[in-house]
Amino acid sequence: MTLKVYADRMSQPSRAIIIFCKVNGIDFEEVRIDLVKRQHRSPKFKEINPMGQVPAVVDGRYKLFESHAILSYLSCAFPGIPDHWYPADLFTRAKIQSILDWHHTNLRRGAATFVLNRALGPALGLPLNPQAANEAEIILRASLSKIESLWLKGNAKFLLGNFQPSIADLSLVCEIMQLEVVDEEDRDRVLGPHPKILQWIENVKSATSPHFEEVHGILHKVKARLHGRLANAKPNDTHLSMKPNPKL
Amino acid sequence: MTLKVYADRMSQPSRAIIIFCKVNGIDFEEVRIDLVKRQHRSPKFKEINPMGQVPAVVDGRYKLFESHAILSYLSCAFPGIPDHWYPADLFTRAKIQSILDWHHTNLRRGAATFVLNRALGPALGLPLNPQAANEAEIILRASLSKIESLWLKGNAKFLLGNFQPSIADLSLVCEIMQLEVVDEEDRDRVLGPHPKILQWIENVKSATSPHFEEVHGILHKVKARLHGRLANAKPNDTHLSMKPNPKL
Repeated sequence: MTLKVYADRMSQPSRAIIIFCKVNGIDFEEVRIDLVKRQHRSPKFKEINPMGQVPAVVDGRYKLFESHAILSYLSCAFPGIPDHWYPADLFTRAKIQSILDWHHTNLRRGAATFVLNRALGPALGLPLNPQAANEAEIILRASLSKIESLWLKGNAKFLLGNFQPSIADLSLVCEIMQLEVVDEEDRDRVLGPHPKILQWIENVKSATSPHFEEVHGILHKVKARLHGRLANAKPNDTHLSMKPNPKL
Repeated sequence: MTLKVYADRMSQPSRAIIIFCKVNGIDFEEVRIDLVKRQHRSPKFKEINPMGQVPAVVDGRYKLFESHAILSYLSCAFPGIPDHWYPADLFTRAKIQSILDWHHTNLRRGAATFVLNRALGPALGLPLNPQAANEAEIILRASLSKIESLWLKGNAKFLLGNFQPSIADLSLVCEIMQLEVVDEEDRDRVLGPHPKILQWIENVKSATSPHFEEVHGILHKVKARLHGRLANAKPNDTHLSMKPNPKL
């Protein structure tokens, strides 16, 4: 029975799961759960994930949510997945788990809150909140500095000095990629001081090409729509209500 | 070489690691990192954990931080740890990982922010913030409802209907236990509607006795000190500066 991946490509952990499956030749069906239409809160989807969040997977009779748990499960449950994604070596695996755990309350907290309050909120019916964006930017910048100084030391291509990417590289880079939807000045201010982060994004992109670019294609469309709306908005109109759009 | 556990028992993930080691007969040295004295920010401790947080462990030449990564590492690295703590079965293990991932941005976010802003802040030199406490209480209560309805269904003794505790039971219950330091009215309002949660706490306590009570003993001392200070505070004095106290 084919693996079902319930996802919205606007969600960065959804993108990580889809890219992982495509890169590793996992036969799967992508089931779109439209966040703008609030399909993640529907009773039907809550039978798949009672937390009402994407991504979630159904593998035969087995249901699972939380993207990091899904990535480690897929690494072990499907034959032929290269070891570098989730190394069997106890010590390396624990270091990867450590990064994934750290991610929740650092990079993810900073990046998702920043992007939501700087650009994306209106698409989800939420107002932009400059103060929340500024606070989140501090967490985001500190997180990027930590990644660069701690896990991308020397000439490392991937986290922990590895030569091949792990699920931690994929999860964290997909998180950072959402900065594509903020305006270029904001993105350059945040990412500009981190050349190693920029090179690492390129390395993950190369290692997962062409799936990385294809799955991230949605961000360019959303950016164009968001910025068109912002340009047309009246001054101080920070709450841009957008009707659900199936093209988002 | 003996495992070193860098911890402050005021930190709930520190307590989870210490209890796990004691229950499983792991030979370890507890190295106190005093949060009130800000020892976690010292250059010396940052050589152990550059993130400046407890808990962290050093096992020979191997260093690790993030409590969930540590718990799964210890479950695999030491001989004779019963399988129920971190089951080798792929499907059960992934479900446990899912709970641990969910925990970061739900129960932990709610409980830690609630307790910090309702009671503990002054001990760490931070003001109490009633609005932040109220917002955190909403997340905390929603998290408890989810745990009860989803993972403690029926007459389950432990999460996922298991007969023995896993590292997820230990981590989540240690998180909830910090509610011991808020006043009883607050604690009853939050936990009172959740009889299954209360029974589950008792089950984890029984399964890890007497270490659970011994390691949590610090909470009773802190509560007595905090409430003594609050009772003596002037009206509106929500920022109670407490000098570092080695007895905390």
